[in-house]
Amino acid sequence: MPAVNNQTDSILLNALREDIGSGDVTTSAIIPEDHRSQAVLIAKEAFLLAGLPYAEAVFRLVNPALKFKANKKDGDKINKGDVIAKIVGRTRDLLAAERTALNLLQRLSGIATLTRRFVNSTRGLKVKITDTRKTTAGLRVFEKYAVRTGGGYNHRAGLFDGVLIKDNHVEAADGIKKAVKLCRENVPHMLKVEVETGNIREVRSALSAGADIIMLDNMTLQDMKKAVAIIRSKNLRTHIEASGGINLQNIRAIAGTGVDLISVGALTHSAMAVDISMEIKPLRRFIDKNSA
Amino acid sequence: MPAVNNQTDSILLNALREDIGSGDVTTSAIIPEDHRSQAVLIAKEAFLLAGLPYAEAVFRLVNPALKFKANKKDGDKINKGDVIAKIVGRTRDLLAAERTALNLLQRLSGIATLTRRFVNSTRGLKVKITDTRKTTAGLRVFEKYAVRTGGGYNHRAGLFDGVLIKDNHVEAADGIKKAVKLCRENVPHMLKVEVETGNIREVRSALSAGADIIMLDNMTLQDMKKAVAIIRSKNLRTHIEASGGINLQNIRAIAGTGVDLISVGALTHSAMAVDISMEIKPLRRFIDKNSA
Amino acid sequence: MPAVNNQTDSILLNALREDIGSGDVTTSAIIPEDHRSQAVLIAKEAFLLAGLPYAEAVFRLVNPALKFKANKKDGDKINKGDVIAKIVGRTRDLLAAERTALNLLQRLSGIATLTRRFVNSTRGLKVKITDTRKTTAGLRVFEKYAVRTGGGYNHRAGLFDGVLIKDNHVEAADGIKKAVKLCRENVPHMLKVEVETGNIREVRSALSAGADIIMLDNMTLQDMKKAVAIIRSKNLRTHIEASGGINLQNIRAIAGTGVDLISVGALTHSAMAVDISMEIKPLRRFIDKNSA
Amino acid sequence: MPAVNNQTDSILLNALREDIGSGDVTTSAIIPEDHRSQAVLIAKEAFLLAGLPYAEAVFRLVNPALKFKANKKDGDKINKGDVIAKIVGRTRDLLAAERTALNLLQRLSGIATLTRRFVNSTRGLKVKITDTRKTTAGLRVFEKYAVRTGGGYNHRAGLFDGVLIKDNHVEAADGIKKAVKLCRENVPHMLKVEVETGNIREVRSALSAGADIIMLDNMTLQDMKKAVAIIRSKNLRTHIEASGGINLQNIRAIAGTGVDLISVGALTHSAMAVDISMEIKPLRRFIDKNSA
Amino acid sequence: MPAVNNQTDSILLNALREDIGSGDVTTSAIIPEDHRSQAVLIAKEAFLLAGLPYAEAVFRLVNPALKFKANKKDGDKINKGDVIAKIVGRTRDLLAAERTALNLLQRLSGIATLTRRFVNSTRGLKVKITDTRKTTAGLRVFEKYAVRTGGGYNHRAGLFDGVLIKDNHVEAADGIKKAVKLCRENVPHMLKVEVETGNIREVRSALSAGADIIMLDNMTLQDMKKAVAIIRSKNLRTHIEASGGINLQNIRAIAGTGVDLISVGALTHSAMAVDISMEIKPLRRFIDKNSA
Amino acid sequence: MPAVNNQTDSILLNALREDIGSGDVTTSAIIPEDHRSQAVLIAKEAFLLAGLPYAEAVFRLVNPALKFKANKKDGDKINKGDVIAKIVGRTRDLLAAERTALNLLQRLSGIATLTRRFVNSTRGLKVKITDTRKTTAGLRVFEKYAVRTGGGYNHRAGLFDGVLIKDNHVEAADGIKKAVKLCRENVPHMLKVEVETGNIREVRSALSAGADIIMLDNMTLQDMKKAVAIIRSKNLRTHIEASGGINLQNIRAIAGTGVDLISVGALTHSAMAVDISMEIKPLRRFIDKNSA
Repeated sequence: MPAVNNQTDSILLNALREDIGSGDVTTSAIIPEDHRSQAVLIAKEAFLLAGLPYAEAVFRLVNPALKFKANKKDGDKINKGDVIAKIVGRTRDLLAAERTALNLLQRLSGIATLTRRFVNSTRGLKVKITDTRKTTAGLRVFEKYAVRTGGGYNHRAGLFDGVLIKDNHVEAADGIKKAVKLCRENVPHMLKVEVETGNIREVRSALSAGADIIMLDNMTLQDMKKAVAIIRSKNLRTHIEASGGINLQNIRAIAGTGVDLISVGALTHSAMAVDISMEIKPLRRFIDKNSA
Repeated sequence: MPAVNNQTDSILLNALREDIGSGDVTTSAIIPEDHRSQAVLIAKEAFLLAGLPYAEAVFRLVNPALKFKANKKDGDKINKGDVIAKIVGRTRDLLAAERTALNLLQRLSGIATLTRRFVNSTRGLKVKITDTRKTTAGLRVFEKYAVRTGGGYNHRAGLFDGVLIKDNHVEAADGIKKAVKLCRENVPHMLKVEVETGNIREVRSALSAGADIIMLDNMTLQDMKKAVAIIRSKNLRTHIEASGGINLQNIRAIAGTGVDLISVGALTHSAMAVDISMEIKPLRRFIDKNSA
Repeated sequence: MPAVNNQTDSILLNALREDIGSGDVTTSAIIPEDHRSQAVLIAKEAFLLAGLPYAEAVFRLVNPALKFKANKKDGDKINKGDVIAKIVGRTRDLLAAERTALNLLQRLSGIATLTRRFVNSTRGLKVKITDTRKTTAGLRVFEKYAVRTGGGYNHRAGLFDGVLIKDNHVEAADGIKKAVKLCRENVPHMLKVEVETGNIREVRSALSAGADIIMLDNMTLQDMKKAVAIIRSKNLRTHIEASGGINLQNIRAIAGTGVDLISVGALTHSAMAVDISMEIKPLRRFIDKNSA
Repeated sequence: MPAVNNQTDSILLNALREDIGSGDVTTSAIIPEDHRSQAVLIAKEAFLLAGLPYAEAVFRLVNPALKFKANKKDGDKINKGDVIAKIVGRTRDLLAAERTALNLLQRLSGIATLTRRFVNSTRGLKVKITDTRKTTAGLRVFEKYAVRTGGGYNHRAGLFDGVLIKDNHVEAADGIKKAVKLCRENVPHMLKVEVETGNIREVRSALSAGADIIMLDNMTLQDMKKAVAIIRSKNLRTHIEASGGINLQNIRAIAGTGVDLISVGALTHSAMAVDISMEIKPLRRFIDKNSA
Repeated sequence: MPAVNNQTDSILLNALREDIGSGDVTTSAIIPEDHRSQAVLIAKEAFLLAGLPYAEAVFRLVNPALKFKANKKDGDKINKGDVIAKIVGRTRDLLAAERTALNLLQRLSGIATLTRRFVNSTRGLKVKITDTRKTTAGLRVFEKYAVRTGGGYNHRAGLFDGVLIKDNHVEAADGIKKAVKLCRENVPHMLKVEVETGNIREVRSALSAGADIIMLDNMTLQDMKKAVAIIRSKNLRTHIEASGGINLQNIRAIAGTGVDLISVGALTHSAMAVDISMEIKPLRRFIDKNSA
Repeated sequence: MPAVNNQTDSILLNALREDIGSGDVTTSAIIPEDHRSQAVLIAKEAFLLAGLPYAEAVFRLVNPALKFKANKKDGDKINKGDVIAKIVGRTRDLLAAERTALNLLQRLSGIATLTRRFVNSTRGLKVKITDTRKTTAGLRVFEKYAVRTGGGYNHRAGLFDGVLIKDNHVEAADGIKKAVKLCRENVPHMLKVEVETGNIREVRSALSAGADIIMLDNMTLQDMKKAVAIIRSKNLRTHIEASGGINLQNIRAIAGTGVDLISVGALTHSAMAVDISMEIKPLRRFIDKNSA
């Protein structure tokens, strides 16, 4: 389960304000203040669930008095027609939270579902699928959580918690060796040093520079295999990451090269929202039906 | 061009903080403070550009001293390989802004590109393609701008600037007629009243209740045609909106029913990011090359 | 009842901070921490009550443990000497909330009271009295609520939820007809289009341009009558709004011209605060009295 | 001139957001982006000007490129028809700032004008007219500035920068003497101690307790005179403040009792906005006119 | 006890965010979500306790469900090994709050402990030890509270709640007399006027200008004695404050000069944190132990 | 140089507001608006400078028009009497920024100076002195910068960018081996895994569990030597960190055990502010002097 706390709450509040603004004019005009309903979140297609605690937080932020009862939990496989959660309370509050909660839940479940497809594509192979920094502005913490829920792993959270030496760094430092050395000297010792490489020559440089992790960026399958062989022959502790242009078609072949990690930007930048709807029944009628 | 102002700046700042956090450890360790470069934003595929002023704002927020020169403008058709913009300044600043600027530009261009495809699918027909409230949490103002850039139109910005009577409202008010009446009485007079209908019976009710706009939600093509005929026979000023399950396959047929508007959630909830990269060259070397 | 939520809470918190700053030096020095009292809000004159839930929110924001018991509710006619509410809790908290709660309650009740006077001045006539955007910086949502409480109606909440074409727009568009057309094309379809007119010629233009609402701004009674006649003869659905220089002396005559709406800036920009005071009794003594 | 800084800017920004929200739909639809105008702020009645630097700040916050030229300055007596300021720039920006700037300027000038009337009512007498904490939520710093501009003086800014012992404090402390003693012991030594008194007995207590300032609250003229005589006979350094129910009718008589200060809640809670309008001319036409 | 409210909460939240950022990676990986523990705050040295309610607030802000039981209270003398508080709840929450709570508690107790040493150094003498504005950025309200807890007194909270005329003011005003006069005219009457003096000549000027408080800044003991004699001979109500270069070695001698107040920057700018640690025991084991 | 950006600006703004609040009453009363001065920051003792760009930022935030000219730069050894910087501008702005700028500069220079003393104590030995998370609430980014300026290194920035397995984690995971394994599986691969050990047995466990870094916490010199020998005999890449109770007396001996890193809480929690003052001269007089 994700950390639902003050930090994420403030993002959710901004989303609510964006939608509600100066107030829901329709509902204020029509629905009496004390009108109460039961809402159900229903899956309109099959998917992997992610983000339910955040959806719950949206309802709580609108009104802590809303009763939210989860029927499913994050990581569950959801079938079309499944009831994901029930929420009971003032109808006005339910309608105020509806769109914001659904937008987030649909997006995060979309990411988890896509992640799971990538993970399943490498079934049986010992490789970790990771996300990238190609996330949606303002939603990184949510999206990285969805990737984990889908069975993926998180790459660094940002520029601050991982060293990744790219070509610009290499150029500025005049070579991979010197770039790695500068990082060893200046970067907190708790961070590993990863070097992005684009060809076998750079792989060798990174290896001899003592990189903790070597990224094979946009290489051919053949080069990747060669790189893995070179690295493994020298040092078994060095992690190897494949990156660049990964899709559902090529991921299994890439995994087959023996890399430890494959980072996939598409997990977050190209996932499509799944379809979930909220249905509301006035509370009295609902009770009647049930008692019938 | 979009309004690039304080309100959007604060969203962009949050995105920057999310990525930069306590600092870019790699760059701080390797790139000297006064190292300067030229960056170019390059299209890796063809698409419709949207969000360039916001990308520029990201660079400005990192350091107002960065020189941003746009080669293209929002709404332009971009070809693979096109240089979209050049930015000159401190290398540290360029790298700090890179991911946040690209993430946003890629997403917004993705939305504009998808919107354009929907718009093109109805070419020659007099229908407006609109977005919905199914936007990404915190980014609605950006995404609605991207839809406009793609040739689409904006539906209401939120619950506050448009009256849309849905089934829950109808049920609470005991009928469409009463729901419309309540809105006419209580809602600011500058807002039109739209009623969501799911069948011909409801269309007739909405029409006789004097709805300004009638939404045909998830109806068959046949029912939509019938609904349009009924409405047009009574009142030429009533707007008709089709909604629900719209995709690139069915939109032209739906447009053919004679509706005025088609609202498409997919524009924002299922657009995929386009591929744009930022390439950096140290400024000295770049100058040498140019002068060669 | 108004929506008392996070958005309004943050405005109330700012008001509290403005008053309390680094702390109530007098009370901290004199009143023991655990000293408890009962406070009563007492009307010092007759008025129409508005804003009590916000006053309650102020006390809750100071300390959620304060018990607030409302004797009256918004919209009630209050007589001099009436007890509006009782609040029990730590004396320090009561004194911290006092001024901020009263300042707001007095202002909002002043607006509601003045609004009611305008509304009563048009008794028997079918006209709506509306507010304008001439509200106090930062308090619009509160003040528009007070206008509704007084029996008035809300005009648009801001520049974002209503189209109002003024002379500058007309001039820039080169005529009313073109200005209306531009709005029909570019503005979300859920918003009506209102045109401000200053004479009969402009009224005719607005009418033929198909304006949904025509504002008669600062016209003579005679011209207003003429304008109403012209508009009604063409289209019964067009709303007519009178505006400019409305006061308690002339409003009934203006209403008599047959307009649908009269917008009155004075409701918010010139309402005077009503007089309410808070009286505090140490809890022990209060209990003794009651038990006597 | 007031301090126009970050703190006040953030209040002004909130006011702008309240009005502009998701954007000015009318202006965006009609006025081209690069359309430029000159706006003039024109007095529609006579008043004392206050708040012009804040109005300027509103325009600057919308767009720092707007050129604001003040024709008048705060404290100036303004006649009907006077041009207060000219602003040149993008028409869109001028319209975005208009209402927020005017609302504030009208309110602050209203306060300054009313303050001046109170001050003039005591002309020739050596008494200071001060404000109270009865200000508008969120606008205290602006309103206290307007009082100063009108020739009034500021009472304490909040609960934090002045000791004022009221009846509740006296009751909790078991007497005025002990209340003053507690403050002398516990309150920062840079703050004077004021005691609110309601009758001659309390005045004597406050005097013997060594109060720096004695407030005569809601006393009759006769009692006030007596109180002044008693206090002056003992200590010439003690300040005497009259308070409660002060209006333009009774203030001169009250001042005549010899008090040093009169605090008037009405200055801020019952001032009415003055009438100022903004007129806009497209820049080309304006130039033509001038060159004609 | 300090005011633990929204204002201080937001400072504590910022401190928590600074430490927790995108999450505690170690704990998330190892400690199960529902793992519960008891934590104890234990003194590793002797000191005077200050800040416990703020430490409690940190735990509450992480999770309101944590049970915090204080064994000691602010102002208590703590011995090495004393248990200050026990907190029971989710282990993840305890670890998230630990460092932020300790950092603050250690610093505030350090200030209170140092303050107490200064206060004790003047035991038997009638002098107040006060803090200055030399506090840590963002923590003034906390640190001034710690000074009070240690038996010290607070000087003004900031530039806003006390008049202190320094040499720059004197120079700009062309003399102490004129500077005092300007303050009497323009500053709220509830604030006393203090004048900083550096020699006997300035002391005489301040005295004749009617300063309420005279600060003797960086004077020799001899001059201070002389200044006190001069002032006392004229006016018994004038407060005398010693300031500048005060330390534990010279404070008793300075107090012996007869000054009323001694302000000591070191209380806040040079206090060292005391040593407190948090020990955690898994709840099951803890219970077993207790039941054994 | 540190990153002086939006994030740190907002901390500095809060500090300014804390001090200035509703305004500098003394200066507003005495110093004319347009009075200009030159201020110089002067060292009152010898120290190592850190934080000058942040002090400059404080002046810039008060008024961007202030001219700040640095005579020294961070990392410079400062002698008593040295002029660190000159600032020219409005006297009101200089006085508004003074205390906030000095408080920060004095604290950061104090940290840098103390850090340098620790670093110098291990001169000639190949060991890095690092900070800890024992920083001042809200100022971590500044204080960690000061440590770097003093020649120290930064440990992890927070809980988010480094894995540190402590006894509570070990206990919850049932052993060091399992705790390390859980981290390898669940923590982003770019982070190293550090294990805190308190005795030789735990050192062996951490080593065999494959920890990247082993912390020797509060061990005797003898045990540390033994631990280093054991670790070095197995794996040359494992980092060794000493921690707990480090001071200027024992650090050289500890460094002599052969550890790679020594983390010292005292760098930030027990540094004392250095003494810097700001002297102001009215601009005219200053010029005269210079021209003399």
